[in-house]
Amino acid sequence: MSSGRVEHQVRVVGSGLLGTSIGLGLRARGVEVIVDDVTPSAARLAIAYGAGREPTPDDVPGVIVVAVPPDATASVVADELTRHPTAVVTDVAGVKAAPLAELRARGADLTRYLGTHPMAGRERSGAMSARADLFTGRPWVVARHDDASIHSVRAVEDLILDLSGVIVEMDVDAHDESVALVSHAPQVISSLIAARLASASRLALGLGGQRLNDITRIASSDPGLWTQILSANAESVAAALRPIRDDLDRVIAALDAPDAPRSQRTLVETLAAGVTGVARIPGKPGQDSRLEVVAVRIDDRQGELARLLRDVSDEGMNVEDLWIEHSGLERRGTAHVSVLHRSAESLAAALGARTWDVVFARGDESVTRPDRSSSGTRG
Amino acid sequence: MSSGRVEHQVRVVGSGLLGTSIGLGLRARGVEVIVDDVTPSAARLAIAYGAGREPTPDDVPGVIVVAVPPDATASVVADELTRHPTAVVTDVAGVKAAPLAELRARGADLTRYLGTHPMAGRERSGAMSARADLFTGRPWVVARHDDASIHSVRAVEDLILDLSGVIVEMDVDAHDESVALVSHAPQVISSLIAARLASASRLALGLGGQRLNDITRIASSDPGLWTQILSANAESVAAALRPIRDDLDRVIAALDAPDAPRSQRTLVETLAAGVTGVARIPGKPGQDSRLEVVAVRIDDRQGELARLLRDVSDEGMNVEDLWIEHSGLERRGTAHVSVLHRSAESLAAALGARTWDVVFARGDESVTRPDRSSSGTRG
Repeated sequence: MSSGRVEHQVRVVGSGLLGTSIGLGLRARGVEVIVDDVTPSAARLAIAYGAGREPTPDDVPGVIVVAVPPDATASVVADELTRHPTAVVTDVAGVKAAPLAELRARGADLTRYLGTHPMAGRERSGAMSARADLFTGRPWVVARHDDASIHSVRAVEDLILDLSGVIVEMDVDAHDESVALVSHAPQVISSLIAARLASASRLALGLGGQRLNDITRIASSDPGLWTQILSANAESVAAALRPIRDDLDRVIAALDAPDAPRSQRTLVETLAAGVTGVARIPGKPGQDSRLEVVAVRIDDRQGELARLLRDVSDEGMNVEDLWIEHSGLERRGTAHVSVLHRSAESLAAALGARTWDVVFARGDESVTRPDRSSSGTRG
Repeated sequence: MSSGRVEHQVRVVGSGLLGTSIGLGLRARGVEVIVDDVTPSAARLAIAYGAGREPTPDDVPGVIVVAVPPDATASVVADELTRHPTAVVTDVAGVKAAPLAELRARGADLTRYLGTHPMAGRERSGAMSARADLFTGRPWVVARHDDASIHSVRAVEDLILDLSGVIVEMDVDAHDESVALVSHAPQVISSLIAARLASASRLALGLGGQRLNDITRIASSDPGLWTQILSANAESVAAALRPIRDDLDRVIAALDAPDAPRSQRTLVETLAAGVTGVARIPGKPGQDSRLEVVAVRIDDRQGELARLLRDVSDEGMNVEDLWIEHSGLERRGTAHVSVLHRSAESLAAALGARTWDVVFARGDESVTRPDRSSSGTRG
């Protein structure tokens, strides 16, 4: 018996990271899960990990989750709608308008289809990376369209709630425009910056530091998968990139005549607009106003970090977040310990009394991960 | 008496983060440091922190470090060269060709001038953020030019070595082109992406996640300071931005006709070039091939992280790096513990035996900070 909302069979098509994680999460709730995959060995692996069982001819799934690459999504959804005429079918692809349009063109029964997009991922793909709690507390977009029946919406949302996802309702176009802005366009831009490094000197690359790491990190994403995503959301991504290109043109023109007063104004306004924009991002790490950071120098000695955290714990404080700034070539570092409740100063004093080398303690928003924010001197 | 190489007086002009840190570092070596600032209260604060003493009419500094904003650098250097006719003068501004050209135009004694650029910064500015070890193990560019005397080069390099910086010799143009590529152009691009967020819906911003945080982090930099930096390095920054703009034009054109075979090729090649470029960055966190990562689920309980690290230490392993992936809205997280020497598997087994919930253990390069790399599913 299910311990959650979903009480019917759930059929998962596609046994990668998302499909397998959905299976594991639902199994943990006692839901009966059927795992299928165009590659039988992939399905077997997911089943071996406990994501569900093999299909049988008698299966009557209540909900079908299609978790296949974006390119294949619409055709697999259409096929499942036909093969299972009573089931509600959903998918988890990162684009939502294109599959819906393709399904409509195919004459699919859209009353039983509702696309979704869980904002959860991992550094690895495949069934072996799957986790039952992958979606816990993460936004999970339900991409509304007018043809979906109330029953379909309810069935899909029950499934998300059983996986502890946070439902975010958006219509398909709003979803695609949003991810173009906050994910797809940044992906393109990060790749473009990283591409320029191919011809950079080793000396130059050595000067980049954390700033360069941060802005190019997502450039290591899979080109094949991202070509599918960008193609499927081409119009919104182009619309998100065009104003960036126009701004870039203005900046280049300003740099071609840097001493002109208008150029100075263009530069400072461009940079200020960035400050305004970044301030709107919710929940940035280290910018939780409830958090305070105490920075402590640590040596690269066995157990040093554990000893520090034990001391923090002994002072009755709970570590909310922790990161270590390494000191370049040296085997030392600075541990940044985030604690709640405006208590950094008393913790700093207590750690100092325990002979730790406390570098600073403060609780305002200016403390983010070191060398990754507005470092006034890292020209 | 000095315990290092520098045995003469060092005069530091400008008592912000860099100037004060230089003073503190040299004082720790027993060097006599004089702190001056156009704003007397700023100098007094740096002196109060222990960065040196006030100037006197009898001072005969051997080296003068000018640590003022880029715009003011050349005029202050010229003034110091005149006022102290036996001293070697250096500066720490983030651009190097423009100040040198301005000094040459002023007819300054270039045999006694040699610019530098320490690649060290912090999340905060000002004397109160200064640290004696700010430069330890960090690259510190010495921007060579033909007029500098051997004596000047030696004096400046001794000072850097006493501050435990890592000397990187480059000529002024190579420096400016390098930082344009790895720092100044990325700063502009990050600001441009962040600027688009000003008009984004709150729902859209909530979908960005760690990917958006990373690429926009440096967009919170100080617009005034960065306008100075970009203006002073305008030609190199424009040269670094132009190919990015051209690539961006190609991507937008491809997205305007996404189904054309040539468009698909443009997209996949652009993304693949990014993968190639980012792989060239040395020393990316989590990509040190000597390191292995063990990921362990932790609850938000008092002392839980300390207990984990104590267990790691008890197993005879040293924590090289550590980061925590928080589980969204839930009060749980995953601690990623980096250890040396291909020993993740045995550590994972040992932690499992101690009843920790080990999520995965692996040592290849694909493990970077979660949600920040090629997450196949975060469209």
